[in-house]
Amino acid sequence: MKSGFSFFMTRQQLIEQINRKESLLCVGLDTDIKKIPGPVLRNNDPVFEFNKQIIDATIDYAVAYKPNLAFYEALGSRGWESLEKTVEYLPDDVFVIADAKRGDIGNTSNLYAKAFFEKMNFDAITIAPYMGKDSVTPFLKFEDKWVILLALTSNEGSADFQIQKIDKSEHRLFEEVLLKGAEWATRDELMFVVGATKADHLVKIRTLVPDYFLLIPGVGAQGGSLDEVCKNGLNQDFGLLINSSRGIIYSSAESDFAFAAKKAAAQLQGEMKQCLDKYM
Amino acid sequence: MKSGFSFFMTRQQLIEQINRKESLLCVGLDTDIKKIPGPVLRNNDPVFEFNKQIIDATIDYAVAYKPNLAFYEALGSRGWESLEKTVEYLPDDVFVIADAKRGDIGNTSNLYAKAFFEKMNFDAITIAPYMGKDSVTPFLKFEDKWVILLALTSNEGSADFQIQKIDKSEHRLFEEVLLKGAEWATRDELMFVVGATKADHLVKIRTLVPDYFLLIPGVGAQGGSLDEVCKNGLNQDFGLLINSSRGIIYSSAESDFAFAAKKAAAQLQGEMKQCLDKYM
Repeated sequence: MKSGFSFFMTRQQLIEQINRKESLLCVGLDTDIKKIPGPVLRNNDPVFEFNKQIIDATIDYAVAYKPNLAFYEALGSRGWESLEKTVEYLPDDVFVIADAKRGDIGNTSNLYAKAFFEKMNFDAITIAPYMGKDSVTPFLKFEDKWVILLALTSNEGSADFQIQKIDKSEHRLFEEVLLKGAEWATRDELMFVVGATKADHLVKIRTLVPDYFLLIPGVGAQGGSLDEVCKNGLNQDFGLLINSSRGIIYSSAESDFAFAAKKAAAQLQGEMKQCLDKYM
Repeated sequence: MKSGFSFFMTRQQLIEQINRKESLLCVGLDTDIKKIPGPVLRNNDPVFEFNKQIIDATIDYAVAYKPNLAFYEALGSRGWESLEKTVEYLPDDVFVIADAKRGDIGNTSNLYAKAFFEKMNFDAITIAPYMGKDSVTPFLKFEDKWVILLALTSNEGSADFQIQKIDKSEHRLFEEVLLKGAEWATRDELMFVVGATKADHLVKIRTLVPDYFLLIPGVGAQGGSLDEVCKNGLNQDFGLLINSSRGIIYSSAESDFAFAAKKAAAQLQGEMKQCLDKYM
Protein backbone atom coordinates (compact mmCIF):
# COMPACT_ATOMS: atom_id res chain seq x y z
CA MET A 1 0.00 0.00 0.00
CA LYS A 2 1.02 3.57 -0.61
CA SER A 3 1.93 5.59 2.45
CA GLY A 4 3.93 8.67 3.32
CA PHE A 5 6.98 6.57 4.16
CA SER A 6 6.84 4.17 1.26
CA PHE A 7 8.56 3.43 -1.98
CA PHE A 8 8.64 6.16 -4.59
CA MET A 9 8.63 5.49 -8.30
CA THR A 10 11.83 6.72 -9.91
CA ARG A 11 12.45 6.57 -13.64
CA GLN A 12 14.72 3.58 -13.18
CA GLN A 13 12.10 1.73 -11.15
CA LEU A 14 9.45 2.45 -13.76
CA ILE A 15 11.73 1.06 -16.48
CA GLU A 16 12.31 -2.07 -14.39
CA GLN A 17 8.56 -2.62 -14.03
CA ILE A 18 8.04 -2.23 -17.78
CA ASN A 19 10.83 -4.75 -18.36
CA ARG A 20 9.46 -7.19 -15.83
CA LYS A 21 5.82 -7.08 -16.99
CA GLU A 22 6.68 -6.57 -20.68
CA SER A 23 3.98 -3.94 -20.65
CA LEU A 24 3.53 -0.21 -21.26
CA LEU A 25 -0.04 -0.35 -20.00
CA CYS A 26 -1.62 2.37 -17.90
CA VAL A 27 -5.17 1.51 -16.83
CA GLY A 28 -7.40 4.57 -16.74
CA LEU A 29 -9.69 4.40 -13.71
CA ASP A 30 -12.41 6.59 -15.23
CA THR A 31 -14.95 4.98 -12.96
CA ASP A 32 -18.44 6.19 -13.80
CA ILE A 33 -21.01 5.32 -11.14
CA LYS A 34 -23.60 4.89 -13.93
CA LYS A 35 -21.59 2.09 -15.49
CA ILE A 36 -20.93 0.05 -12.36
CA PRO A 37 -22.67 -3.37 -12.49
CA GLY A 38 -25.61 -3.96 -10.13
CA PRO A 39 -24.02 -6.31 -7.57
CA VAL A 40 -21.13 -3.88 -6.96
CA LEU A 41 -23.54 -0.96 -6.64
CA ARG A 42 -24.98 -2.56 -3.50
CA ASN A 43 -21.56 -2.19 -1.84
CA ASN A 44 -21.03 0.55 0.74
CA ASP A 45 -18.49 2.31 -1.50
CA PRO A 46 -19.26 1.02 -5.02
CA VAL A 47 -16.66 3.17 -6.79
CA PHE A 48 -13.84 1.91 -4.57
CA GLU A 49 -15.12 -1.69 -4.75
CA PHE A 50 -15.23 -1.52 -8.56
CA ASN A 51 -11.69 -0.08 -8.66
CA LYS A 52 -10.41 -2.71 -6.24
CA GLN A 53 -11.72 -5.53 -8.39
CA ILE A 54 -10.36 -3.90 -11.57
CA ILE A 55 -6.93 -3.42 -9.95
CA ASP A 56 -6.81 -7.02 -8.68
CA ALA A 57 -7.77 -8.27 -12.14
CA THR A 58 -5.28 -6.18 -14.14
CA ILE A 59 -2.27 -5.80 -11.85
CA ASP A 60 -0.21 -8.47 -13.66
CA TYR A 61 -0.53 -6.58 -16.95
CA ALA A 62 -0.33 -2.91 -15.98
CA VAL A 63 2.61 -0.76 -14.87
CA ALA A 64 0.51 2.33 -14.16
CA TYR A 65 -2.97 3.42 -13.08
CA LYS A 66 -4.57 6.75 -13.83
CA PRO A 67 -7.76 7.87 -12.07
CA ASN A 68 -9.31 10.83 -13.88
CA LEU A 69 -10.36 13.24 -11.15
CA ALA A 70 -13.56 14.36 -12.90
CA PHE A 71 -15.19 11.00 -12.27
CA TYR A 72 -14.58 11.32 -8.52
CA GLU A 73 -15.41 15.01 -8.19
CA ALA A 74 -18.73 14.35 -9.92
CA LEU A 75 -19.70 12.49 -6.72
CA GLY A 76 -18.60 15.25 -4.33
CA SER A 77 -16.93 14.45 -1.01
CA ARG A 78 -17.93 10.77 -1.25
CA GLY A 79 -16.15 10.50 -4.59
CA TRP A 80 -13.09 12.08 -3.07
CA GLU A 81 -13.12 9.40 -0.36
CA SER A 82 -13.35 6.64 -2.95
CA LEU A 83 -10.34 8.18 -4.69
CA GLU A 84 -8.31 8.34 -1.47
CA LYS A 85 -9.06 4.67 -0.78
CA THR A 86 -8.18 3.68 -4.34
CA VAL A 87 -4.76 5.36 -4.18
CA GLU A 88 -4.16 3.78 -0.79
CA TYR A 89 -5.03 0.35 -2.19
CA LEU A 90 -2.70 0.51 -5.20
CA PRO A 91 0.57 -1.38 -4.61
CA ASP A 92 3.92 0.43 -4.38
CA ASP A 93 5.36 -1.00 -7.56
CA VAL A 94 2.88 0.62 -9.94
CA PHE A 95 3.06 4.22 -11.09
CA VAL A 96 -0.03 6.17 -9.98
CA ILE A 97 -1.11 9.23 -11.97
CA ALA A 98 -3.67 11.83 -10.90
CA ASP A 99 -5.23 12.86 -14.20
CA ALA A 100 -6.19 16.26 -12.89
CA LYS A 101 -5.01 18.67 -15.61
CA ARG A 102 -4.43 21.33 -12.98
CA GLY A 103 -2.37 24.52 -13.31
CA ASP A 104 -2.64 27.75 -11.33
CA ILE A 105 -0.47 30.57 -9.97
CA GLY A 106 2.46 29.52 -7.77
CA ASN A 107 0.97 29.53 -4.26
CA THR A 108 -2.12 27.71 -5.54
CA SER A 109 -0.19 25.11 -7.55
CA ASN A 110 1.75 24.45 -4.36
CA LEU A 111 -1.50 23.52 -2.62
CA TYR A 112 -2.55 21.21 -5.44
CA ALA A 113 0.88 19.56 -5.16
CA LYS A 114 0.29 18.97 -1.46
CA ALA A 115 -3.17 17.57 -2.14
CA PHE A 116 -1.96 15.01 -4.65
CA PHE A 117 1.56 14.25 -3.40
CA GLU A 118 1.19 14.49 0.38
CA LYS A 119 -2.49 14.18 1.31
CA MET A 120 -2.72 11.39 -1.24
CA ASN A 121 0.33 9.50 -2.42
CA PHE A 122 0.16 9.90 -6.19
CA ASP A 123 3.44 9.53 -8.09
CA ALA A 124 2.45 12.00 -10.78
CA ILE A 125 -0.09 14.63 -11.77
CA THR A 126 -1.12 15.88 -15.20
CA ILE A 127 -0.78 19.65 -15.65
CA ALA A 128 -2.11 22.03 -18.32
CA PRO A 129 0.72 24.32 -19.52
CA TYR A 130 -1.28 27.46 -20.38
CA MET A 131 -0.20 29.43 -17.28
CA GLY A 132 3.50 28.74 -17.87
CA LYS A 133 6.56 28.00 -15.77
CA ASP A 134 5.51 29.21 -12.32
CA SER A 135 2.35 27.10 -12.52
CA VAL A 136 4.48 23.97 -13.10
CA THR A 137 7.58 24.36 -10.93
CA PRO A 138 5.80 24.09 -7.52
CA PHE A 139 5.07 20.45 -8.38
CA LEU A 140 8.75 19.78 -9.11
CA LYS A 141 9.86 20.57 -5.57
CA PHE A 142 8.56 17.23 -4.34
CA GLU A 143 11.34 14.67 -4.58
CA ASP A 144 10.67 11.62 -6.75
CA LYS A 145 7.28 13.00 -7.77
CA TRP A 146 6.40 13.72 -11.39
CA VAL A 147 4.68 16.33 -13.53
CA ILE A 148 3.06 15.13 -16.75
CA LEU A 149 2.56 18.19 -18.93
CA LEU A 150 -0.18 18.29 -21.59
CA ALA A 151 1.49 18.81 -24.95
CA LEU A 152 -0.62 17.45 -27.82
CA THR A 153 -3.96 16.05 -26.68
CA SER A 154 -6.06 13.41 -28.42
CA ASN A 155 -9.23 15.48 -28.90
CA GLU A 156 -10.46 17.56 -31.84
CA GLY A 157 -9.97 20.78 -29.90
CA SER A 158 -6.20 20.26 -29.99
CA ALA A 159 -6.42 21.98 -33.39
CA ASP A 160 -7.68 25.23 -31.84
CA PHE A 161 -4.48 26.29 -30.09
CA GLN A 162 -1.97 23.45 -29.69
CA ILE A 163 -1.06 23.08 -33.35
CA GLN A 164 -0.97 26.82 -34.10
CA LYS A 165 2.42 27.92 -35.39
CA ILE A 166 4.31 30.43 -33.30
CA ASP A 167 5.52 33.55 -35.10
CA LYS A 168 9.28 33.72 -35.85
CA SER A 169 9.73 30.15 -34.68
CA GLU A 170 9.74 26.89 -36.57
CA HIS A 171 7.51 25.40 -33.89
CA ARG A 172 3.89 24.87 -33.11
CA LEU A 173 2.53 25.72 -29.67
CA PHE A 174 2.71 22.12 -28.41
CA GLU A 175 6.32 21.91 -29.58
CA GLU A 176 7.11 25.06 -27.61
CA VAL A 177 5.55 23.32 -24.61
CA LEU A 178 7.85 20.33 -25.12
CA LEU A 179 10.95 22.52 -25.43
CA LYS A 180 10.13 24.80 -22.49
CA GLY A 181 9.09 21.84 -20.34
CA ALA A 182 12.45 20.20 -21.05
CA GLU A 183 14.15 23.42 -19.92
CA TRP A 184 12.18 23.45 -16.66
CA ALA A 185 12.67 19.84 -15.60
CA THR A 186 14.69 16.71 -16.32
CA ARG A 187 13.49 13.40 -17.69
CA ASP A 188 13.55 12.13 -14.10
CA GLU A 189 10.69 14.41 -13.03
CA LEU A 190 8.74 15.34 -16.15
CA MET A 191 6.75 13.49 -18.82
CA PHE A 192 4.47 14.79 -21.58
CA VAL A 193 0.98 13.85 -22.73
CA VAL A 194 0.75 13.10 -26.46
CA GLY A 195 -2.49 11.66 -27.84
CA ALA A 196 -2.29 8.37 -29.74
CA THR A 197 -4.51 9.92 -32.40
CA LYS A 198 -1.53 12.14 -33.28
CA ALA A 199 1.00 9.34 -33.84
CA ASP A 200 2.31 10.99 -37.02
CA HIS A 201 3.64 13.85 -34.85
CA LEU A 202 5.66 11.43 -32.69
CA VAL A 203 8.63 11.30 -35.08
CA LYS A 204 9.25 15.03 -34.71
CA ILE A 205 8.38 14.93 -31.00
CA ARG A 206 11.15 12.37 -30.49
CA THR A 207 13.66 14.74 -32.11
CA LEU A 208 12.64 17.45 -29.60
CA VAL A 209 12.41 15.34 -26.42
CA PRO A 210 14.22 12.07 -27.20
CA ASP A 211 14.69 11.01 -23.57
CA TYR A 212 11.41 11.91 -21.90
CA PHE A 213 8.61 9.50 -21.13
CA LEU A 214 5.36 10.19 -22.98
CA LEU A 215 1.93 9.33 -21.59
CA ILE A 216 -0.25 8.30 -24.53
CA PRO A 217 -4.03 8.34 -24.19
CA GLY A 218 -6.36 7.64 -27.08
CA VAL A 219 -5.55 4.01 -28.00
CA GLY A 220 -8.82 2.08 -28.28
CA ALA A 221 -12.10 4.02 -27.94
CA GLN A 222 -10.55 7.17 -29.43
CA GLY A 223 -9.03 5.30 -32.38
CA GLY A 224 -5.22 5.59 -32.05
CA SER A 225 -2.98 2.79 -33.39
CA LEU A 226 -0.78 0.98 -30.85
CA ASP A 227 1.67 -0.21 -33.50
CA GLU A 228 2.18 3.27 -34.94
CA VAL A 229 2.60 4.79 -31.47
CA CYS A 230 5.26 2.21 -30.58
CA LYS A 231 7.05 2.50 -33.93
CA ASN A 232 7.35 6.29 -33.66
CA GLY A 233 7.45 6.76 -29.92
CA LEU A 234 9.59 4.09 -28.23
CA ASN A 235 13.10 5.09 -27.16
CA GLN A 236 16.02 3.15 -25.65
CA ASP A 237 14.35 3.20 -22.19
CA PHE A 238 10.88 2.42 -23.57
CA GLY A 239 9.77 6.01 -22.93
CA LEU A 240 6.05 5.29 -23.28
CA LEU A 241 3.10 4.71 -21.00
CA ILE A 242 0.00 3.87 -23.03
CA ASN A 243 -3.36 4.43 -21.42
CA SER A 244 -6.57 2.53 -21.96
CA SER A 245 -9.64 3.37 -19.87
CA ARG A 246 -13.03 2.42 -21.30
CA GLY A 247 -11.52 -0.40 -23.41
CA ILE A 248 -10.53 -2.22 -20.22
CA ILE A 249 -12.74 -1.22 -17.33
CA TYR A 250 -16.02 -1.41 -19.28
CA SER A 251 -15.24 -4.56 -21.27
CA SER A 252 -18.36 -6.03 -19.73
CA ALA A 253 -21.31 -4.28 -18.09
CA GLU A 254 -22.27 -7.47 -16.21
CA SER A 255 -21.00 -9.08 -13.03
CA ASP A 256 -18.09 -10.63 -15.00
CA PHE A 257 -16.64 -7.12 -15.49
CA ALA A 258 -13.42 -7.92 -13.60
CA PHE A 259 -12.76 -11.07 -15.59
CA ALA A 260 -13.51 -9.20 -18.82
CA ALA A 261 -11.14 -6.41 -17.76
CA LYS A 262 -8.45 -9.00 -17.05
CA LYS A 263 -8.89 -10.47 -20.54
CA ALA A 264 -8.81 -7.03 -22.19
CA ALA A 265 -5.69 -6.01 -20.22
CA ALA A 266 -3.96 -9.31 -21.04
CA GLN A 267 -4.83 -8.86 -24.71
CA LEU A 268 -3.46 -5.31 -24.82
CA GLN A 269 -0.33 -6.31 -22.88
CA GLY A 270 0.20 -9.13 -25.39
CA GLU A 271 0.01 -6.65 -28.26
CA MET A 272 2.43 -4.36 -26.41
CA LYS A 273 4.87 -7.24 -25.94
CA GLN A 274 4.74 -7.88 -29.67
CA CYS A 275 5.50 -4.22 -30.35
CA LEU A 276 8.37 -4.29 -27.87
CA ASP A 277 9.80 -7.39 -29.55
CA LYS A 278 9.42 -5.75 -32.95
CA TYR A 279 10.76 -2.26 -32.22
CA MET A 280 13.13 -2.50 -29.26
CA MET B 1 -29.52 29.39 -0.15
CA LYS B 2 -28.50 27.80 -3.43
CA SER B 3 -30.44 24.73 -4.46
CA GLY B 4 -31.27 22.81 -7.60
CA PHE B 5 -34.54 24.71 -7.99
CA SER B 6 -33.34 28.17 -7.16
CA PHE B 7 -32.51 31.44 -8.79
CA PHE B 8 -29.88 31.46 -11.49
CA MET B 9 -27.61 34.37 -12.16
CA THR B 10 -28.19 35.77 -15.64
CA ARG B 11 -26.12 38.59 -17.10
CA GLN B 12 -28.94 41.02 -16.46
CA GLN B 13 -29.26 39.96 -12.83
CA LEU B 14 -25.51 40.34 -12.33
CA ILE B 15 -25.64 43.85 -13.77
CA GLU B 16 -28.51 44.69 -11.40
CA GLN B 17 -26.51 43.51 -8.40
CA ILE B 18 -23.50 45.60 -9.47
CA ASN B 19 -25.80 48.60 -9.82
CA ARG B 20 -27.45 48.01 -6.48
CA LYS B 21 -24.26 47.47 -4.46
CA GLU B 22 -22.16 49.92 -6.52
CA SER B 23 -19.51 47.24 -6.46
CA LEU B 24 -17.51 45.05 -8.84
CA LEU B 25 -16.09 43.06 -5.95
CA CYS B 26 -15.52 39.32 -6.08
CA VAL B 27 -14.21 37.94 -2.78
CA GLY B 28 -11.75 35.09 -3.30
CA LEU B 29 -12.39 32.39 -0.71
CA ASP B 30 -8.83 31.01 -0.82
CA THR B 31 -9.26 29.67 2.67
CA ASP B 32 -6.00 28.25 3.96
CA ILE B 33 -6.42 26.15 7.09
CA LYS B 34 -3.00 27.38 8.27
CA LYS B 35 -4.23 30.97 8.30
CA ILE B 36 -7.48 30.43 10.20
CA PRO B 37 -7.44 32.15 13.63
CA GLY B 38 -7.31 29.92 16.71
CA PRO B 39 -10.88 30.30 18.02
CA VAL B 40 -12.34 29.30 14.62
CA LEU B 41 -9.97 26.33 14.38
CA ARG B 42 -11.69 24.77 17.38
CA ASN B 43 -14.91 24.59 15.36
CA ASN B 44 -16.05 21.26 13.95
CA ASP B 45 -15.59 22.50 10.37
CA PRO B 46 -13.19 25.44 10.67
CA VAL B 47 -12.94 26.12 6.93
CA PHE B 48 -16.71 26.45 6.56
CA GLU B 49 -17.01 28.47 9.78
CA PHE B 50 -14.30 30.88 8.57
CA ASN B 51 -16.03 31.23 5.18
CA LYS B 52 -19.41 31.77 6.83
CA GLN B 53 -18.09 34.61 8.96
CA ILE B 54 -16.27 36.14 5.97
CA ILE B 55 -19.43 35.93 3.83
CA ASP B 56 -21.61 37.49 6.55
CA ALA B 57 -19.09 40.29 6.98
CA THR B 58 -18.63 41.12 3.29
CA ILE B 59 -22.01 40.38 1.70
CA ASP B 60 -23.05 44.06 1.56
CA TYR B 61 -19.98 44.93 -0.49
CA ALA B 62 -19.50 41.93 -2.80
CA VAL B 63 -21.41 40.80 -5.88
CA ALA B 64 -19.45 37.57 -6.35
CA TYR B 65 -17.52 34.93 -4.39
CA LYS B 66 -14.83 32.69 -5.79
CA PRO B 67 -13.54 29.68 -3.84
CA ASN B 68 -10.28 28.41 -5.35
CA LEU B 69 -10.61 24.63 -5.41
CA ALA B 70 -6.97 23.96 -4.55
CA PHE B 71 -7.48 25.18 -0.99
CA TYR B 72 -10.30 22.67 -0.47
CA GLU B 73 -8.71 19.73 -2.29
CA ALA B 74 -5.60 20.17 -0.14
CA LEU B 75 -7.77 18.91 2.75
CA GLY B 76 -9.15 15.89 0.88
CA SER B 77 -12.75 14.75 1.31
CA ARG B 78 -13.20 16.99 4.39
CA GLY B 79 -12.20 20.02 2.34
CA TRP B 80 -14.68 19.03 -0.31
CA GLU B 81 -17.41 18.93 2.34
CA SER B 82 -16.47 22.43 3.54
CA LEU B 83 -16.73 23.62 -0.06
CA GLU B 84 -20.18 22.07 -0.54
CA LYS B 85 -21.42 23.72 2.64
CA THR B 86 -19.94 27.07 1.61
CA VAL B 87 -21.69 27.06 -1.77
CA GLU B 88 -24.91 26.02 -0.06
CA TYR B 89 -24.59 28.91 2.40
CA LEU B 90 -24.03 31.64 -0.21
CA PRO B 91 -27.22 33.62 -0.96
CA ASP B 92 -28.90 33.42 -4.37
CA ASP B 93 -28.21 37.00 -5.34
CA VAL B 94 -24.44 36.69 -5.49
CA PHE B 95 -22.51 35.15 -8.39
CA VAL B 96 -20.58 32.07 -7.27
CA ILE B 97 -17.48 31.03 -9.21
CA ALA B 98 -15.63 27.71 -8.91
CA ASP B 99 -12.03 28.72 -9.55
CA ALA B 100 -11.11 25.27 -10.79
CA LYS B 101 -9.20 25.94 -14.03
CA ARG B 102 -10.44 22.62 -15.42
CA GLY B 103 -10.46 21.46 -19.05
CA ASP B 104 -10.48 17.93 -20.42
CA ILE B 105 -11.85 15.93 -23.37
CA GLY B 106 -15.61 16.14 -23.98
CA ASN B 107 -17.01 13.28 -21.89
CA THR B 108 -14.76 14.25 -18.98
CA SER B 109 -15.56 17.97 -19.15
CA ASN B 110 -19.19 16.93 -19.04
CA LEU B 111 -18.58 15.24 -15.68
CA TYR B 112 -16.80 18.29 -14.29
CA ALA B 113 -19.78 20.36 -15.41
CA LYS B 114 -22.11 18.06 -13.49
CA ALA B 115 -19.88 18.23 -10.41
CA PHE B 116 -19.87 22.03 -10.28
CA PHE B 117 -23.25 22.92 -11.76
CA GLU B 118 -25.49 20.08 -10.51
CA LYS B 119 -23.82 18.38 -7.54
CA MET B 120 -22.93 21.85 -6.30
CA ASN B 121 -24.78 24.94 -7.45
CA PHE B 122 -21.97 27.14 -8.76
CA ASP B 123 -22.95 29.80 -11.29
CA ALA B 124 -19.63 29.64 -13.12
CA ILE B 125 -16.41 27.70 -13.46
CA THR B 126 -12.98 28.84 -14.66
CA ILE B 127 -11.60 26.79 -17.57
CA ALA B 128 -8.12 26.56 -19.10
CA PRO B 129 -8.36 26.85 -22.89
CA TYR B 130 -5.38 24.69 -23.92
CA MET B 131 -7.50 21.70 -25.04
CA GLY B 132 -9.75 23.81 -27.25
CA LYS B 133 -13.41 23.96 -28.16
CA ASP B 134 -14.64 20.49 -27.21
CA SER B 135 -13.17 20.90 -23.72
CA VAL B 136 -15.25 24.07 -23.24
CA THR B 137 -18.59 23.42 -24.92
CA PRO B 138 -19.84 20.70 -22.50
CA PHE B 139 -20.05 23.41 -19.82
CA LEU B 140 -22.17 25.60 -22.08
CA LYS B 141 -25.01 23.10 -22.27
CA PHE B 142 -26.16 24.02 -18.76
CA GLU B 143 -28.69 26.81 -19.00
CA ASP B 144 -27.85 30.03 -17.17
CA LYS B 145 -24.46 28.65 -16.12
CA TRP B 146 -21.22 30.29 -17.11
CA VAL B 147 -17.74 29.43 -18.36
CA ILE B 148 -14.93 31.82 -17.46
CA LEU B 149 -12.07 31.11 -19.84
CA LEU B 150 -8.47 31.88 -18.88
CA ALA B 151 -7.11 34.38 -21.38
CA LEU B 152 -4.27 36.46 -19.91
CA THR B 153 -3.34 35.45 -16.38
CA SER B 154 -1.70 37.61 -13.73
CA ASN B 155 1.40 35.49 -13.11
CA GLU B 156 4.91 35.67 -14.59
CA GLY B 157 4.39 32.43 -16.49
CA SER B 158 1.81 34.16 -18.71
CA ALA B 159 4.84 35.22 -20.76
CA ASP B 160 5.74 31.62 -21.62
CA PHE B 161 2.85 30.86 -23.96
CA GLN B 162 -0.04 33.33 -23.61
CA ILE B 163 1.70 36.35 -25.09
CA GLN B 164 3.45 34.43 -27.90
CA LYS B 165 2.48 35.76 -31.32
CA ILE B 166 0.72 33.37 -33.64
CA ASP B 167 2.23 32.95 -37.11
CA LYS B 168 0.36 34.66 -39.99
CA SER B 169 -1.95 36.37 -37.54
CA GLU B 170 -1.84 39.76 -35.91
CA HIS B 171 -2.71 38.16 -32.60
CA ARG B 172 -1.06 36.73 -29.56
CA LEU B 173 -2.20 33.38 -28.16
CA PHE B 174 -4.41 34.95 -25.47
CA GLU B 175 -6.06 37.14 -28.14
CA GLU B 176 -6.81 34.01 -30.20
CA VAL B 177 -8.42 32.59 -27.04
CA LEU B 178 -10.61 35.70 -26.75
CA LEU B 179 -11.65 35.55 -30.40
CA LYS B 180 -12.31 31.79 -30.48
CA GLY B 181 -14.11 31.93 -27.14
CA ALA B 182 -16.39 34.64 -28.50
CA GLU B 183 -17.15 32.35 -31.48
CA TRP B 184 -18.06 29.47 -29.18
CA ALA B 185 -20.33 31.30 -26.75
CA THR B 186 -22.25 34.52 -26.24
CA ARG B 187 -21.69 37.21 -23.62
CA ASP B 188 -24.60 35.63 -21.71
CA GLU B 189 -22.67 32.44 -20.98
CA LEU B 190 -18.97 33.26 -21.24
CA MET B 191 -16.51 35.56 -19.48
CA PHE B 192 -12.71 35.78 -19.67
CA VAL B 193 -9.98 35.96 -17.02
CA VAL B 194 -7.57 38.87 -17.51
CA GLY B 195 -5.03 39.62 -14.79
CA ALA B 196 -5.03 43.12 -13.29
CA THR B 197 -1.25 43.13 -13.65
CA LYS B 198 -1.83 43.29 -17.42
CA ALA B 199 -4.09 46.38 -17.42
CA ASP B 200 -2.22 47.89 -20.38
CA HIS B 201 -3.55 45.04 -22.53
CA LEU B 202 -7.15 45.87 -21.61
CA VAL B 203 -7.52 48.57 -24.25
CA LYS B 204 -6.89 46.10 -27.05
CA ILE B 205 -8.86 43.38 -25.26
CA ARG B 206 -11.90 45.67 -25.26
CA THR B 207 -11.62 46.08 -29.03
CA LEU B 208 -11.70 42.27 -29.40
CA VAL B 209 -14.44 41.43 -26.87
CA PRO B 210 -16.23 44.72 -26.13
CA ASP B 211 -19.34 43.14 -24.62
CA TYR B 212 -18.03 40.28 -22.52
CA PHE B 213 -17.55 40.36 -18.77
CA LEU B 214 -13.94 40.04 -17.59
CA LEU B 215 -12.94 38.48 -14.28
CA ILE B 216 -9.89 40.36 -13.04
CA PRO B 217 -7.64 38.82 -10.39
CA GLY B 218 -4.41 40.41 -9.24
CA VAL B 219 -5.58 43.67 -7.64
CA GLY B 220 -3.95 44.00 -4.23
CA ALA B 221 -1.37 41.35 -3.21
CA GLN B 222 -0.28 40.84 -6.82
CA GLY B 223 0.07 44.58 -7.49
CA GLY B 224 -2.53 45.48 -10.14
CA SER B 225 -4.06 48.99 -10.20
CA LEU B 226 -7.83 49.24 -9.68
CA ASP B 227 -8.05 52.65 -11.35
CA GLU B 228 -6.21 51.50 -14.47
CA VAL B 229 -8.30 48.32 -14.70
CA CYS B 230 -11.52 50.34 -14.50
CA LYS B 231 -10.33 53.02 -16.91
CA ASN B 232 -9.40 50.46 -19.59
CA GLY B 233 -11.81 47.67 -18.82
CA LEU B 234 -15.27 49.04 -17.96
CA ASN B 235 -17.94 48.88 -20.67
CA GLN B 236 -21.54 50.13 -20.88
CA ASP B 237 -22.74 47.21 -18.72
CA PHE B 238 -19.84 47.45 -16.27
CA GLY B 239 -18.31 44.26 -17.76
CA LEU B 240 -15.89 43.70 -14.87
CA LEU B 241 -15.70 41.51 -11.79
CA ILE B 242 -12.61 42.34 -9.76
CA ASN B 243 -11.31 39.73 -7.37
CA SER B 244 -9.51 40.23 -4.09
CA SER B 245 -8.63 37.22 -1.94
CA ARG B 246 -5.79 37.64 0.54
CA GLY B 247 -6.32 41.40 0.77
CA ILE B 248 -9.73 40.81 2.30
CA ILE B 249 -9.90 37.43 4.01
CA TYR B 250 -6.52 37.74 5.75
CA SER B 251 -6.76 41.40 6.72
CA SER B 252 -6.29 40.25 10.29
CA ALA B 253 -4.85 36.97 11.61
CA GLU B 254 -6.60 37.46 14.96
CA SER B 255 -10.14 36.84 16.17
CA ASP B 256 -11.24 40.18 14.66
CA PHE B 257 -10.65 38.72 11.17
CA ALA B 258 -14.29 39.07 10.10
CA PHE B 259 -14.47 42.71 11.17
CA ALA B 260 -11.16 43.38 9.43
CA ALA B 261 -12.46 41.66 6.29
CA LYS B 262 -15.59 43.82 6.42
CA LYS B 263 -13.46 46.96 6.65
CA ALA B 264 -11.22 45.84 3.77
CA ALA B 265 -14.21 44.94 1.58
CA ALA B 266 -15.93 48.25 2.39
CA GLN B 267 -12.74 50.14 1.55
CA LEU B 268 -12.33 48.38 -1.79
CA GLN B 269 -16.02 48.79 -2.64
CA GLY B 270 -15.65 52.51 -1.86
CA GLU B 271 -12.74 52.75 -4.28
CA MET B 272 -14.77 50.85 -6.89
CA LYS B 273 -17.68 53.27 -6.46
CA GLN B 274 -15.29 56.16 -7.06
CA CYS B 275 -14.06 54.47 -10.26
CA LEU B 276 -17.65 53.84 -11.38
CA ASP B 277 -18.50 57.51 -10.77
CA LYS B 278 -15.39 58.55 -12.66
CA TYR B 279 -15.55 56.29 -15.71
CA MET B 280 -19.19 55.26 -16.23
